[in-house]
This record gives sequence, structure tokens and C-alpha cells, in this order.
Amino acid sequence: MRQVAVAGVGKTAFGVFANRDLRSLAVEASRKCLENSGVADGDVQAFYLGNFAGPSFAGQSHLAPFVAAEVGLSGIPATRFEDACASGGTAFFHAWAAVASGIYDTVLVTGVEKMTSQSGPRVTEILASAGDVSGEMRAGATFPALFAMIARRHMYEFGTTREQMAAVAVKNHANGAMNPDAHLRKVITLEQALAGRPVADPLTLFDCSPVSDGAASVLLMAAEKVPEPRVVVRGIAQTSDHVALDRKETITTFKAVQQAGEKAYRMAGLSPSDIDFAEVHDCFTIAEIIAIEDLGFVAKGAGGAYSAAGHTSLRGEKPINPSGGLKSKGHPVGATGIAQICDAVQQIRGNAGDRQLARHAIGLTQNLGGSGATCVVTILGEG
Amino acid sequence: MRQVAVAGVGKTAFGVFANRDLRSLAVEASRKCLENSGVADGDVQAFYLGNFAGPSFAGQSHLAPFVAAEVGLSGIPATRFEDACASGGTAFFHAWAAVASGIYDTVLVTGVEKMTSQSGPRVTEILASAGDVSGEMRAGATFPALFAMIARRHMYEFGTTREQMAAVAVKNHANGAMNPDAHLRKVITLEQALAGRPVADPLTLFDCSPVSDGAASVLLMAAEKVPEPRVVVRGIAQTSDHVALDRKETITTFKAVQQAGEKAYRMAGLSPSDIDFAEVHDCFTIAEIIAIEDLGFVAKGAGGAYSAAGHTSLRGEKPINPSGGLKSKGHPVGATGIAQICDAVQQIRGNAGDRQLARHAIGLTQNLGGSGATCVVTILGEG
Repeated sequence: MRQVAVAGVGKTAFGVFANRDLRSLAVEASRKCLENSGVADGDVQAFYLGNFAGPSFAGQSHLAPFVAAEVGLSGIPATRFEDACASGGTAFFHAWAAVASGIYDTVLVTGVEKMTSQSGPRVTEILASAGDVSGEMRAGATFPALFAMIARRHMYEFGTTREQMAAVAVKNHANGAMNPDAHLRKVITLEQALAGRPVADPLTLFDCSPVSDGAASVLLMAAEKVPEPRVVVRGIAQTSDHVALDRKETITTFKAVQQAGEKAYRMAGLSPSDIDFAEVHDCFTIAEIIAIEDLGFVAKGAGGAYSAAGHTSLRGEKPINPSGGLKSKGHPVGATGIAQICDAVQQIRGNAGDRQLARHAIGLTQNLGGSGATCVVTILGEG
Repeated sequence: MRQVAVAGVGKTAFGVFANRDLRSLAVEASRKCLENSGVADGDVQAFYLGNFAGPSFAGQSHLAPFVAAEVGLSGIPATRFEDACASGGTAFFHAWAAVASGIYDTVLVTGVEKMTSQSGPRVTEILASAGDVSGEMRAGATFPALFAMIARRHMYEFGTTREQMAAVAVKNHANGAMNPDAHLRKVITLEQALAGRPVADPLTLFDCSPVSDGAASVLLMAAEKVPEPRVVVRGIAQTSDHVALDRKETITTFKAVQQAGEKAYRMAGLSPSDIDFAEVHDCFTIAEIIAIEDLGFVAKGAGGAYSAAGHTSLRGEKPINPSGGLKSKGHPVGATGIAQICDAVQQIRGNAGDRQLARHAIGLTQNLGGSGATCVVTILGEG
């Protein structure tokens, strides 16, 4: 297996863009990424598209050749990957594998979602299709309800509090306020977060990531073809688990996340303490707390207290979501996994502006699908 | 690159199954395939799912881990691939690449679609999402209309006749009548085909493949781990082109098919005359005529006359769609590309029963997405 470098990154802003369509967002991120990399269009050998629900949100299937042709890459294999909220991550994983194994030298990976053209109830219904529709969703358990159950159980088992969850939101908003591409660029207080409108008890509006439009793109290349200094994939893994919550042994640990983390650490020859910072999948604040536990940054059950103590802030010992996370940056589903990579690369390159971390050599990203049925963990660093 | 063997095949029957859901079809094909291969569940390292529109047809996204867990493969990477009607083919292509390059030794690839639970107009609308929704579909040009335009232009340029197109339907129904898994197992006459209800002039009902439920599955393994005699992938390619017909230089040739064929022949070190038989993507009869031209079996424009002369029948010089093709076998979209592989493997193994061909050493499959925006061509043979 060859080393794979992230040779370019590109993103649109995340937000509500009434006048933009799905394709134009994907094309903008892709073109920015190609320009950032300095690679000629003709050198791109395959196009991998992460998209959760373009057919449902925008009525358009067959998006990969549609976008590829518009970017100017007609002729090459162009394929859409879908694994719910981990669609971007799985596209990235497969593209990494193709370059690492020598199938291709140069692959463009773009993630995109255009969500805000649908009504709120319809968005909730489309998102719910990432769970077990025949069971959970039939019973009315949409994703806020599922993560509320998970939060309630975490509170019961480990004493996690609403204040600790709110602290995650406060920290991610503080970080995102400094991110020019973030959807919700505003600082919030703990009091505001706690007084948020209830969504699914114990989660308030401030525990939930927003519905956003956006796209993100990375160019993967065989590292030997990219001049130093360069950012490379040091470890990566994709895992799966049952979709329905009631099929899992526990709902306060995501087995798929634990397994993906262990595999990625082993591949990189690193341990959780070697990770300088992480972009994790905080679709809900409780998901960030569980993620830092499952990834081994803290002991199981200690994630809430660790977050509330400030250890995951920009100046803390283990910065989590310096970009603002899904909570503040926005969560255009198919784009999320790729945007996490873009943000981590920006930190490692030292280009993160006001959000730049003191220690930024090794970053980890964690992209989650559904309530833990898919996970992709990637460890990036200079190499 | 290592040689890759198709170590097992499994299919459900294709048809209208009111009491079957999407997942159960995929699980049945997957289990049959694992049994056919004799490989233990624990040896499967990744799961690739081809599915066009499960979210639209059945309201369920995130299908790959959902099916994988039910098959008994929980934990491994499980990913859905979508490229319209070539979703099965693109899942197969990426799985082949992963095994050929040494990422995995053993990969299960399943294609599935459950279409018949929706009304006819809704099915047409969902299928139309594989074209350019913002242009073609807004103008009312659903797929029968697009292929009617293509047929009309082929008639104008090359003198192709309705009788020649009908001859394709007659031949495919004759073959499919002998296929126990086919959706439409009935012999039809040329008169019947010509007198079919008009769908989109010049296409009648008998020029169109049916709407079907079904699943198909193949197990790919490093050839060195499979005892001889075995069926291996000798050549394969995936290509892309513009989605909208009006962006193509010509609509009587699919550039993506030509390019995929050329690449696959080059990889296999074979020419069109070396191919003993082919399973091509006859979503409409005109698509089969164009496919045998674009794949180089006959000169451009000669496909209609060649078909009407009987050369593509079971006992002809170049049997096309000995399985019955999409026309008779059925076209559960995501399953189609994988079912073509299953059918070709059955022929090469000499297990095709009444449909068994005299010469069956080298078979080619061609899976098309949309009106030629995606194509996957695979060449299979003993090796």
C-alpha cells in the first residue's frame, strides 16, 4: 500500500442558499479543490461523490456523472456513494483505497447536500430514512428522538448532565464563530443553550446540528507525486453495525466507532494520546461526548465532564471540532465527511486563521452514519 | 494487479413480489451467493451494494449496513453505490478494483431493487431522476421518450426499422422463456411485438423492459484463492459522459459504451470477434441494437439488420442476451448489472440449462446508466 496525500481541498460556505442548486454547489467545491491542488483536470482519473439524498432532496439521481461532466471530467469513472450521514466519509475511504492500492494516482472526492429547499417535516422524513424505516421510523422515532434516547441512557448510566451537553454546543459555536465558512457564526452562552426550545427531551435546539446546504472536495494523490510538505493519510478505517438501535448491545457506545478507531490507530501506529485534535461527528451534542469516549480520548462515561471542564476547547489539552463541528459549521449531510477532512488539513497546514491550534501535527476525523451503523475514522498528518 | 475470480453467484427470481421487501430480496440473493461459493461468512471482508433508488421506491436509505447486518456480515465496510441503472455495474467495478489491487481477498457484491410497490406514474418519475431533471424531465421527457428519440434518429440515420427492433424483443422473450428466474417467461411473435400498445412512438410496450423486483449477488475473490476451473474477470472498465442528451455529440452512439468496451478489450487482450456471447443492457430494444454496434460486434448502423437476420439468437453467430435480457428477465434496476454477471458466469460454467450456448468460453456484460452517462463493461472467461 502506498501513502496517499490530500493534495488539495475546496469548500463552499455552508448555509441556506435559496438560489443555488445541488450541482452548482458540488461544482464550486470541486473547482476550488482542483485550483488549490494545482493539478490539471486531465490528470484526474476518477470521481467519487458522497451524497446522502440528492434524489429525495432535489429529485436528481445519477449525480456523479452529472457533476463530473460539469466540472470538466467527462469520460472517467464517476460514482455516487451513499451511507447516510457517512456518505462523504465512505466516498473518501474508497478513494483512499483506490489510490493506496495503485488503481489510480489522482482521484477527486466531492461531498454535497442541498437540503433547505424542502419543508422542515419533509427534511425530517428524508433524514429518518437513514434509520430503520420499517421499525424505528414507523414508530415515529426520527433522529432527534433516537439521540434523545441515547442521551437519556448516557445520563442514567454515567451521570452525564444537560449542562455538559450544552457545554459542547457553547464550545462549538465559539469555534465556528471564527470560521468564515460556518453556517451559524455566533457565540452562545451556557444559559442560552440550556434555555433552547425543546426538540426531543433532553435535547434542545442547541443540542442539534442545523439543516444546511453545502459542498466540500478533496483531491487524493499518491504521496510520491506530491512535493513536501504534504498532508498524508496515516490511518483509516470504515466499519458497519446494525442500523436499528434495538439490535445493538448498548446504545451508549457505538461499536462501529470503537472498531474504526482501533483499526485506524493500528494502521497509523498511533494511540489516542498521539492525536493533537479531532473533527468528530457532533450531529447532536451527545454524539460528540460519545465519540470522544469511543475514540479513546477519555474513559467511557467521562466525556461529559471532560467537555464541561474545557479540555476540548481550542486551548484545551485535546481540542475537538476546532472548525465549529456540525453544530456550528452546519451539516449538509453528504458534504460533512469531506468537510471534516478539509478542516483537518487546514489545521495541519497551519492555515486555520483565528482557529489555528498550537499543536496541529496529527488530526483525526470521525464521520458517523445513522445512529452508528456506519463509521469512517481517518488520521491525517504531515508525511 | 491480481486476477479476480467470481467465486459464487446467487439470484432471486425477478418479478412482482407484493409480499417481499427490499431487504429480504437482497438478503436472499446474498445468502444464496455465499452458499454457492462455499465461503464462510467470516471470510467476507467488505460488502458492496448496488441500488438505484431504495430511498425513493421503499423510503429506506443507508441500505448497505442494513443488508450486511441481516446477511450476518456486521462490522465490515458496507457501502451503497448509485449510478442509476448502472448501480450494480459500478458496485461490481469498485469491488473488482479492491480485490485486484489487494485491498481485500473476498468481497460480496449485491444488487437490489424493489420497484413494484409504487404506482406506475411514480415509478416513471423515480426512473426519470436518472436523467437531467432540471432540463429533460422538466420538459416531460421521461426515459421511454428519450429512447424513442434515440430510436427515431437511428431509423433516420441508418434505416433501422420497427421490425428490426421488434425482432430483438422476440429473440429476448424466446430466451427468457427458458430462464426460470425471468419475470416475463413467454414467447412472443413478431406480429405481437409490432402490434404492442404504443408507449412513445416508435416504441411499443414490447420495446420496453418491465418494472420488476429482484436481487442478484456475486462473491469476488483473489483468483489465486479459488480452485480451478474458475471464472475470472479478464477485462473491465467504467466510464462516464454527460447526463443530458442535448450535451452529447450524437445520440445514436453512446461514447461511454464505446470507451468502456475499448478499455475492457485492451485489458483482456481481446477483440470483439473473440467474444462468444454478451449480456447487454436492453432497457429498450433500440438500446440492444446500439450496444452491439458500440461494442464493435457489428458496424455502426448495422445492428438492426444483424438482429433481424437472427445472428444474435441462441444458435446465431453472436448470441446476445441468452438470459432473456432486461426485456424478458426483468429490470430491477440496481440488480441488473449484477444479474448480467451471474448469467454470464452460468453460461461460462456450462450451467445454463436449455439456454446453454455451444460456444461459451468468453462472455461480455454491458450495464448502462441513464441515456448513456455511465457504462460498465466486463469481460469474463475461464482462467
